[in-house]
Amino acid sequence: MMKNLTKLKIEKPANEVFEVIVDPVKIGGFWFSSSSERWAEGKVITLRYDEYNAEGKIEIVKVEENRKIVFRDFDEHVVTITLEEQNTLSTIIEVIEEGFDENDPELIEKLIDNKEGWVYALTCLKAYLEFDVTKLRAALVK
Amino acid sequence: MMKNLTKLKIEKPANEVFEVIVDPVKIGGFWFSSSSERWAEGKVITLRYDEYNAEGKIEIVKVEENRKIVFRDFDEHVVTITLEEQNTLSTIIEVIEEGFDENDPELIEKLIDNKEGWVYALTCLKAYLEFDVTKLRAALVK
Repeated sequence: MMKNLTKLKIEKPANEVFEVIVDPVKIGGFWFSSSSERWAEGKVITLRYDEYNAEGKIEIVKVEENRKIVFRDFDEHVVTITLEEQNTLSTIIEVIEEGFDENDPELIEKLIDNKEGWVYALTCLKAYLEFDVTKLRAALVK
Repeated sequence: MMKNLTKLKIEKPANEVFEVIVDPVKIGGFWFSSSSERWAEGKVITLRYDEYNAEGKIEIVKVEENRKIVFRDFDEHVVTITLEEQNTLSTIIEVIEEGFDENDPELIEKLIDNKEGWVYALTCLKAYLEFDVTKLRAALVK
């Protein structure tokens, strides 16, 4: 099955990485502008992207505190975020997005575009958590 | 022809973006560890990646000061970097990598991997130039 896998090393403990994803304000430091409430298992969350005047809903399928988040996104894709704490100083964040239609004539473009989004979001997350930089996001030009 | 195109807005004038790419020390702030000398048309440059104890050569095909750099890389791909200054405060950097073999059974994986590299490098460049952050690079996990 076609999927995208992206992994980045973050020089922070897993609970801090987890927190910036599930917190509805902190997410605005690196990814979407905000989410409608704190992410938790079973909730449907509205994600806002103010810069593009856009929003969409995701369904949080599973949450393991500081370890794993699974959600279903706008395209019915399933995203699994796994945090692997290496020691108290660093965490590997791994994102797998699955559900791409192998018969879609635009499959390659969609996979590449999706990869772009994840690498960008995770790099912005790293800059936010490690260096308190909140102005890297929303600069990709399509 | 299969290619990757990546564009990012950098809140700096074009000459500063140009400089961090062609300067053999500054490149170490966001991309490779260093290059063997200043990039200039016709030169063959050795790029070092200390973290992976790796190096490779590229050939600089064309340089237009503060506007464009074209080089041929290790895989015989051609990379065109274009800087479009919007005003004295911001620049759109566009990178096109061409030369992927459409009959390669690993084409999709190679395109996605290549896209990952460019999004990561350009985001690190933005963090370096705008926020003086030099420790974002070399954290992708393969």
